[in-house]
Amino acid sequence: MDRTGRAPRGSAIRELLAITANRSVIGFGGGLTAPELFPAAELAECLARVLADRPASALQYGPTEGLAALRETLAARLSQRGIDVAPDGVLITTGSQQGLDLLAEAFLTKGSPVMIEAPTYVGALQALSAHEPEFKAFSVDGDGFQVDALEEWVDVHGRPDLIYTVPTFGNPSGVTMSYRRRERLIELARKLAVPLLEDDPYSELSYDGLPPVAMRAMPGGEDVIHVGTFSKVLAPGIRIGYVVAPRVVLERLILMKQGRDLHTDALAQNMVAEYCTRFGLDSHVERLRGSYRERRDAMLVALRRTMPASVSWTQPAGGMFLWLTLRAGRETGELLRTAVAAGVSFVPGTAFHADGGGANCMRLNFTSSSLEEIAQGVGILARLISDKA
Amino acid sequence: MDRTGRAPRGSAIRELLAITANRSVIGFGGGLTAPELFPAAELAECLARVLADRPASALQYGPTEGLAALRETLAARLSQRGIDVAPDGVLITTGSQQGLDLLAEAFLTKGSPVMIEAPTYVGALQALSAHEPEFKAFSVDGDGFQVDALEEWVDVHGRPDLIYTVPTFGNPSGVTMSYRRRERLIELARKLAVPLLEDDPYSELSYDGLPPVAMRAMPGGEDVIHVGTFSKVLAPGIRIGYVVAPRVVLERLILMKQGRDLHTDALAQNMVAEYCTRFGLDSHVERLRGSYRERRDAMLVALRRTMPASVSWTQPAGGMFLWLTLRAGRETGELLRTAVAAGVSFVPGTAFHADGGGANCMRLNFTSSSLEEIAQGVGILARLISDKA
Repeated sequence: MDRTGRAPRGSAIRELLAITANRSVIGFGGGLTAPELFPAAELAECLARVLADRPASALQYGPTEGLAALRETLAARLSQRGIDVAPDGVLITTGSQQGLDLLAEAFLTKGSPVMIEAPTYVGALQALSAHEPEFKAFSVDGDGFQVDALEEWVDVHGRPDLIYTVPTFGNPSGVTMSYRRRERLIELARKLAVPLLEDDPYSELSYDGLPPVAMRAMPGGEDVIHVGTFSKVLAPGIRIGYVVAPRVVLERLILMKQGRDLHTDALAQNMVAEYCTRFGLDSHVERLRGSYRERRDAMLVALRRTMPASVSWTQPAGGMFLWLTLRAGRETGELLRTAVAAGVSFVPGTAFHADGGGANCMRLNFTSSSLEEIAQGVGILARLISDKA
Repeated sequence: MDRTGRAPRGSAIRELLAITANRSVIGFGGGLTAPELFPAAELAECLARVLADRPASALQYGPTEGLAALRETLAARLSQRGIDVAPDGVLITTGSQQGLDLLAEAFLTKGSPVMIEAPTYVGALQALSAHEPEFKAFSVDGDGFQVDALEEWVDVHGRPDLIYTVPTFGNPSGVTMSYRRRERLIELARKLAVPLLEDDPYSELSYDGLPPVAMRAMPGGEDVIHVGTFSKVLAPGIRIGYVVAPRVVLERLILMKQGRDLHTDALAQNMVAEYCTRFGLDSHVERLRGSYRERRDAMLVALRRTMPASVSWTQPAGGMFLWLTLRAGRETGELLRTAVAAGVSFVPGTAFHADGGGANCMRLNFTSSSLEEIAQGVGILARLISDKA
């Protein structure tokens, strides 16, 4: 994406990271976690232990499906959230992005109808787009995916080849799908025997009580394909994600993954398993929750204080993002260039739409900036928006 | 692959690793490096330093094209071998397997003619097969790829979409392509404007003097696509490979890689860059060379001593493998079951052929077994082969 947000989607994430890497700009653009919260010393301790105790496991070729110890850790952890899965029902992937890529390859061919949310995760659009499917986008309201509209579409057009959703603390919307809608979506997918892909990177980053139950954990949700990651709860740079899927799907993904990269970094897998055993992920996640909750609250307060009445935004109960809507006709793609010059970045809404919609919207990240930067950055944005509100 | 070597290629590597993991079997089957030679303590030191000095670089999202410091290290290292490339001409990949996968996606569609060696690397067959190309296999003699036959094919059929070769210390053959053949292959690829993919994981593991010059470093070889890896010279488990390619190709690969896994593990990339700076790779590689040379020699001696006259084998000047040919009609796929029961594994030759050829051949790895195991394992094999020689 160039600075106006108009270039090909393909380069969007990469260029966003480039903008965010510019230290003089307050970065609401990236999907970054807070670097000062990385448990770097603890991870170094885990790595020292792993390399002393089991160097061959960490440095030698390993199984394509993932390190047994990590699959066990994950299965136990997922079961705490009601996701009933055996270790051999979990595939370790090179980030959850690889999970999306493999699933796209498994289910899509040119012209395949895929139901997605509007707006939706830009990395999913990229992984799915490689197979040139037909995107059927359904707008999100305060309760998430509008399942009514999906049902109507199916009545007319029949079965899609895939349904993709980020139901909990959605990226970029910050919205969470209601329990009732989840039930209906599971029912729809079951009735049509359509793979339902639940992309769930954010559930553990819940700021107002417990997160909603995953669709994979709900009655009838046994066949939901659940994709997760350690990126948001530990560190994104190590690229450790996972897929929970029915055995027949998982077998196909494992064969594909072999051709893609043989297996995911064994050192990083060992490190994560060791961290979970030695330190437990829960206390770290609790620390993240406390810090990110403050930042979310600071952003909501700043928005209420400074934004003109023509602007609305979502109220995320978790995750990393909120979604801002300007008056119709206002182009956030154009605004980005001015904003970066004024010292703040965001992602224009078009990046999250398969069809170029969302031109008057933007995604704001609240997890990677300090409270001061959040207040200051939102102030700058409000001034720029008000100038031509 | 099942124990008879007859099952789908898709699962070949995975199942081989499973066989090799069985400690009671002498493993000539895997493509494993010697675990006792991993510089585990030095790597632990590098990781401690990286996590103390630059935790955000190691744990945060990073650029798709790879860590700048590692690309610089690689460009400098490659230039020592005559491969003239700037840091931004190098793409870091999740193992060289990902390089093969991305290049297959870039150049192949269903039915694309691809010229390959027979036998060739099983992981390449797997990556390329995903696009359902037409494999045109040309058998290897003592000087490698038989370029004559390629030229003849082209005269009749025209331009292929890709030429794939492991020219130096080939896997599985152990054979090295002669300089004259390399010249002619480069010329052929240039004349036809066909991408020429030089898969080069083994050059640094040279046991009889300097390795041959890479095609990418030869006159006229500027457009050769050169794929390499740290798997054989440092550790395979960390999945760090690279692609050197013309800028226009690299840009396409980078966009694809974004959709595949966003970027390669940043912690592992930092570790490798730190290791190269702090310890230098050369002294470690020299250690590997010394140890692997002994093992290669031990295997050649054992073969000479024990094998019946009906068996022949290659004389690798480097790398990890040699290729054994039994009398015509003898099936190594059948032999494998007996061999594993008797305490030794290998890979039947059919795994390395797109068309099921090589049934009377096998690949032997000499880098992951001790000198005693090599003598003992070859002895067992010779006895089994002689029984029905």
